[in-house]
Amino acid sequence: MSTTPAVPGSTALAPEIAARLKRTDDGLLPAVAQQYDTGEVLMLGWMDDEALHRTLTTGRCTYWSRSRREYWVKGDTSGHVQRVVSVALDCDGDTLLVKVDQSGAACHTGDRTCFDADVLPLA
Amino acid sequence: MSTTPAVPGSTALAPEIAARLKRTDDGLLPAVAQQYDTGEVLMLGWMDDEALHRTLTTGRCTYWSRSRREYWVKGDTSGHVQRVVSVALDCDGDTLLVKVDQSGAACHTGDRTCFDADVLPLA
Repeated sequence: MSTTPAVPGSTALAPEIAARLKRTDDGLLPAVAQQYDTGEVLMLGWMDDEALHRTLTTGRCTYWSRSRREYWVKGDTSGHVQRVVSVALDCDGDTLLVKVDQSGAACHTGDRTCFDADVLPLA
Repeated sequence: MSTTPAVPGSTALAPEIAARLKRTDDGLLPAVAQQYDTGEVLMLGWMDDEALHRTLTTGRCTYWSRSRREYWVKGDTSGHVQRVVSVALDCDGDTLLVKVDQSGAACHTGDRTCFDADVLPLA
């Protein structure tokens, strides 16, 4: 098991992509997962260079778990896989948008998305 | 100008909301801005307790700028305002999804979204 994200340059991520990434102090970028056809925002995960490399090359979303400090492939435990449709880097190079085809629930609670349960009151 | 995010509890954010937030070490949560009707993911910004409070109570999206270290109301400079439609907290309490009505371009480059220009190649 890994305990720290991969050091930039230590993975097989294409150098021309790695050079454009602006990472947090922990070496990570937030990655927004969106259902490609309905537009639902499903969840937000975190990727380091290696997780992004795996996401781009395996067709399955791979994230870095900040709490467990290891890579996880979405759906490996739950069966609720995310097939990768496209990956875009934002204008600042510090956020990823991953369009996916989500099988079943994206949220560990069983909800379709991680944002279904707690809508905050507007004043 | 503020130079650090507001300390939790020092703002008027409702305590029952503040108690559910899981912040980064910098006191922030990533906030995904999504066009409420088309589903477009427009941008990702950062909010501390005070920025969230202002977003919930003013009807306009307010973010914390990590680079400038100050609050900014989307559209105050560009005119490209984000009217707040709804705000949801995710299952882990560490990410916000803000559905908005975006006037014009969300991206400072003039693109509609911050994710339009740099689609990464899949292997």
